[in-house]
Amino acid sequence: VSEGATENRQIDLIAFDADDTLWHSENLYAAAQEKFGELMAPYAGESTALSTLHETEIRNLQPYGFGVKAFVLSMIETAIQLSQGRVGSEVIAALLATGKDMLAAEVELLEGVTEAVTALAADYPLMVITKGDLGHQASKLERSGLAQHFRYVEIVADKNREVYVNLFAKHGIDPTRVLMVGNSLKSDVIPVLELGGWGVFAPYAILWAHEHAELPEALASRFREIERLDALPEIVRQIELE
Amino acid sequence: VSEGATENRQIDLIAFDADDTLWHSENLYAAAQEKFGELMAPYAGESTALSTLHETEIRNLQPYGFGVKAFVLSMIETAIQLSQGRVGSEVIAALLATGKDMLAAEVELLEGVTEAVTALAADYPLMVITKGDLGHQASKLERSGLAQHFRYVEIVADKNREVYVNLFAKHGIDPTRVLMVGNSLKSDVIPVLELGGWGVFAPYAILWAHEHAELPEALASRFREIERLDALPEIVRQIELE
Repeated sequence: VSEGATENRQIDLIAFDADDTLWHSENLYAAAQEKFGELMAPYAGESTALSTLHETEIRNLQPYGFGVKAFVLSMIETAIQLSQGRVGSEVIAALLATGKDMLAAEVELLEGVTEAVTALAADYPLMVITKGDLGHQASKLERSGLAQHFRYVEIVADKNREVYVNLFAKHGIDPTRVLMVGNSLKSDVIPVLELGGWGVFAPYAILWAHEHAELPEALASRFREIERLDALPEIVRQIELE
Repeated sequence: VSEGATENRQIDLIAFDADDTLWHSENLYAAAQEKFGELMAPYAGESTALSTLHETEIRNLQPYGFGVKAFVLSMIETAIQLSQGRVGSEVIAALLATGKDMLAAEVELLEGVTEAVTALAADYPLMVITKGDLGHQASKLERSGLAQHFRYVEIVADKNREVYVNLFAKHGIDPTRVLMVGNSLKSDVIPVLELGGWGVFAPYAILWAHEHAELPEALASRFREIERLDALPEIVRQIELE
């Protein structure tokens, strides 16, 4: 595939999810949850603590949206609830500190990402589509060292079919000629498949329960699954040869 | 000014700040600060409480960015600090509730906004440029009833000259042909004046101390000031006649 042969291509744009697709993120949430479980030990068993936190997070998606700040606010709310108000301010302070540590954590790329992004950027325009806190996501992309490879960066409040429709329309991109790669079937892969594009699923070791979904049979022909992102250039090459 | 005469125009795009320009926002922060002062009464006088909160907010701009979630996290941190850890969880819960009330508050348009936006949308493409939480800003625009008048909506992590340069470049808009209106000289008016565009200052009754700035003399020729947004169509008409 070379830039000169674009008229024979199937794909005009390759889009990437960011958290747990380009760089580790869920491991920071998992470590914070473990810490939360320990802090709640005087008041609740670990599984009760974590399931209650999860319920709070889901309930708070509407006011708070996604991201670390929302997560910290939900941890504090859950701590007060689980302790029936007995939780001390040293625990609240520890939860605030956990959040700041998450925001400051080094950006750790997943294996194979640099190779895949560098190789594909030579032949295709690349886009990042991520949800979460604006400033935090922009800061991670900057610190990742990958920013210069992405022509478009889209940080969105949520990822659903309507959001993808508007986003591709804004850039004048035909969604049937987009390939989207991500670790969430629900947020990254299925919406783009439903619009007629290509969807590549790159599962992360940990999946947030809220992101679970099944792949509908009818969407299988443009669906691919890979273990590491360095398999992506070959997937793209095969699609262009079809 | 009609759509047919665009080649003789000076202005190609009219951009609006949102919080405290289109709708009230700072009044919600002011009410929350008053509540915070009351909650801190056992530990600190009101002015100490508010100045310490302000210091915390500024210190936390880097990890947290702008918006209600950042503000709530800073209130909680300051409450622990001012009370030297003695603050009870009922106060923390009250601060969380204050934040949720702010996020759910009805969107209250400033006077003259509907008239100005409706009139200008008939002749110019309009843009919203706002910073804060993605989901919250998008939700307020939706609830404002004004969303259909804006061709572009840009929610950004911060507003400085570089952000404006990138944002106008992305849309292929010449910044010297932009008119930006907002209640902050520092964030809305001066950066656009510095890029050669037009800047209209519409001060709000309350200004966050962080947003204070002086207008440089050299930028005065393309600077205008209005009390209410319904003065804007006439300002635009005068500029087009120059």
